[in-house]
Amino acid sequence: MRKISDSTVRRLSVYLRFLEQTKTPTISSRELARLGGTTSAQVRKDLSFFGSFGKRGLGYAVPELTRRIRDILGLERGYRVVLVGAGRMGGALVQYQGFKQRGFHITAIYDHDARKIGSRWNGLVVRDVTHLENDLKKDPSDIAIVATPAESAQQVVDRLVRSGVKAILNFAPVPLNVPADVEVKTVNMALELETLSYSLANR
Amino acid sequence: MRKISDSTVRRLSVYLRFLEQTKTPTISSRELARLGGTTSAQVRKDLSFFGSFGKRGLGYAVPELTRRIRDILGLERGYRVVLVGAGRMGGALVQYQGFKQRGFHITAIYDHDARKIGSRWNGLVVRDVTHLENDLKKDPSDIAIVATPAESAQQVVDRLVRSGVKAILNFAPVPLNVPADVEVKTVNMALELETLSYSLANR
Repeated sequence: MRKISDSTVRRLSVYLRFLEQTKTPTISSRELARLGGTTSAQVRKDLSFFGSFGKRGLGYAVPELTRRIRDILGLERGYRVVLVGAGRMGGALVQYQGFKQRGFHITAIYDHDARKIGSRWNGLVVRDVTHLENDLKKDPSDIAIVATPAESAQQVVDRLVRSGVKAILNFAPVPLNVPADVEVKTVNMALELETLSYSLANR
Repeated sequence: MRKISDSTVRRLSVYLRFLEQTKTPTISSRELARLGGTTSAQVRKDLSFFGSFGKRGLGYAVPELTRRIRDILGLERGYRVVLVGAGRMGGALVQYQGFKQRGFHITAIYDHDARKIGSRWNGLVVRDVTHLENDLKKDPSDIAIVATPAESAQQVVDRLVRSGVKAILNFAPVPLNVPADVEVKTVNMALELETLSYSLANR
C-alpha cells in the first residue's frame, strides 16, 4: 500500500469517530464531509486510497468502512503505552478517556520525584524512572508518552529508544532527536496559541 | 505582508524559543536549523519572508530577530484568555507554565458543574458558565480555550463567538463550526496517538 499523507491519516481518524457513533447502516460522503468539516470530494479521495467501498447513490456501508479504517490505522490490535512524567499534564493524560476508547492503554507511569513515586494514579502506582529499562525489557511497549520538563525530555527519549519504543507522543516543549525508525509527534500547546496569536495579529 | 503558511508560523515559534534562550549576540541559520530540527535553507526561507536580517558569514543578530519574530507572531501585546471547562484537561492547562511565559494569561475559568463552581484554581475562582456573556461584555477576551466534553463544545463555542472571541483553542474531540472571521485550532490527543499507530502498522 502506498504511503498516506499525515493529513489524510488525521481525517480518517476523524471519520472513524463519526462512523462509530452513527446509527444508520450506510453513510454518504456528503454526510461524512459535513461531520468532518471537509468536502465530499476530499472524503471520496481519502477513501479511494483503500479501494472502492462506496456505492453510487447508496453511500458507504458503515460496518465495513469502520473495520477498514480501524485496520488501516492499526487500531485493531490495541497498544500498551508507558507514560514518563507524573506532573500536571501527565495527570490529565492518564485520565484522558479518549486514549482507552481508542485502544491505547497506559500500563505504567514513571517519574524521578521521590514525592510522586509510589502514589497511585488511576489504579497505577507511579514507578521510579530508574526502573524504565528493566520494565520495558520484561513488558515491551511500542508507544511512550513523554510529559517531562523540557530539560529532561531528550534524555528520557534516548532511554526509551534504546529500550525498543518505536513511537513517542511528546508534550515537552522541545524538538527531539530520534533515529529514522522511530516516530515522534510533539504536541506543544503554547505553539498552538501562538498560531492563533499570529492570525489575530494579521487579520 | 503576504500570508505566511501555518507550518512557517510554527517554525518561527520554535526558532523564537531558542532565540530567547541563546546567550550569543548572533546565531547562524545552521544553528537555528539544528535546534529546530530543520535545514539551513528552510530557516533562511522562513526568515526571508520578513526582509533581510542575516549577514552572510555573521548570522542573525539575536535581539533584532527575537523582536521581529515576536512582533510577527503578535506576541508583544499579551493576551487575556478565558478557559471553559474545569475538568482534568482544564486543570493541566491552567497550570501550564508555557502559556504565561509567552504572554497568554488565563484570566477566568468557567464550568457548569456546581461542585466545581466557587473552587479556587491557581488563584482564580471557577465561575458559573452562565456568567460567560456578561463577563466577556465587561472584560473582552480575544482568545478562549475550550476544554469541555465533546457534547457541549459547539454550544460553548457559539456563545464565545457571539461574545466577540476571535480565536479558540479546542481540546474537545470534535470539529467545531465557526464564522470565517474566527480561527479555531483543535488539539486532539487520541488523534495524535492514532497517527503514531498508523505509522507503527505501516512500517
